[in-house]
Amino acid sequence: MSGAIDFYFDFSSPYGFLASQKIEALAQKYGRSVDWHPILLGVIFKETAAAPLTMIPLKGEYSKRDLARSARFHGLEFRMPSKFPIATQAAARIVLWLEGRDPELAVRIAKALYGAYFLGDVDISDPEQAIAVAAGEGVDANEARAAIGDPAVKQGLKREVEQAIARGVFGSPYVIVDGEPFWGLDRFDQVERWLATGGF
Amino acid sequence: MSGAIDFYFDFSSPYGFLASQKIEALAQKYGRSVDWHPILLGVIFKETAAAPLTMIPLKGEYSKRDLARSARFHGLEFRMPSKFPIATQAAARIVLWLEGRDPELAVRIAKALYGAYFLGDVDISDPEQAIAVAAGEGVDANEARAAIGDPAVKQGLKREVEQAIARGVFGSPYVIVDGEPFWGLDRFDQVERWLATGGF
Repeated sequence: MSGAIDFYFDFSSPYGFLASQKIEALAQKYGRSVDWHPILLGVIFKETAAAPLTMIPLKGEYSKRDLARSARFHGLEFRMPSKFPIATQAAARIVLWLEGRDPELAVRIAKALYGAYFLGDVDISDPEQAIAVAAGEGVDANEARAAIGDPAVKQGLKREVEQAIARGVFGSPYVIVDGEPFWGLDRFDQVERWLATGGF
Repeated sequence: MSGAIDFYFDFSSPYGFLASQKIEALAQKYGRSVDWHPILLGVIFKETAAAPLTMIPLKGEYSKRDLARSARFHGLEFRMPSKFPIATQAAARIVLWLEGRDPELAVRIAKALYGAYFLGDVDISDPEQAIAVAAGEGVDANEARAAIGDPAVKQGLKREVEQAIARGVFGSPYVIVDGEPFWGLDRFDQVERWLATGGF
């Protein structure tokens, strides 16, 4: 029971961003690695008739307050971007493309993209801005641009989202540990107990 | 900063049931009392275009697993009733009626009704079964029956739900501490820090 932890996230997901800052320390504490899976919630929400949190009456207002408070509770930085939600295909494709070449770099770029959007207010739905973030971490801009338009990468992301849905993923962040699914940063306490005890 | 904690719940809400077993100990630890507010999620869900958790694709399957696991995580008993979700007007009216007469008894009856449904698989949407649960705790069955049909009690519940919506309540459990709203049992860690620190 020491497989990688599957970490599903959408680059437009605020709770996903918060979770992205905690998942690796949690995994390392129990000798686990993390497989980062960028997904497209827009596609998944069509399956579940869901909507972006902030757009739902009452819940939307609450979620803005809860996000800021949850960030403080966890001691994490957070700012709501001026454009929200955004399309995340470009960012997801860059990361997926890098995973096939250099998984460690892919994780570094994923964190850089998330941080650019949620801390730097960079609109990473714009392919050129996403490319610039990756280039700032040493990725070749022309290669990244080609990857975003590459039918094989597009197809790979489509397959990744389909596989996520097939595994029951309906939100972000979504973590699977040894087959056990956990939705939300607020399940990280249960994830930790699961890792510590092998299930409860 | 030592007012009562407002605890909003629907009798058909599984996470509300779990939370109902934790809220009083949490409040007492910080010298607070709890105001129990039975609400009708069916009415509120019309505002937010929401649906009962278990009926949503993917999320429904997950929630059944998460509920059982969350109960184990918190060391609480839980069983999914054979009939779910249910209408909760009868149970809510009994509790609201009792709150006007004997608040302590109202809380005891609220717990008895919740336990009857989630542990005893009693269909408390049936007024007679809800009355029987209350009668088992010493409430006069005829008076309870009259209260369920009393226009003033009906109107009182309607007003309670309207006030809840006006305060932003959109789910169950929903807790308000000194004006700060917390949705879900999984925010009880934040509720506790809020109570301990006076806000963070």
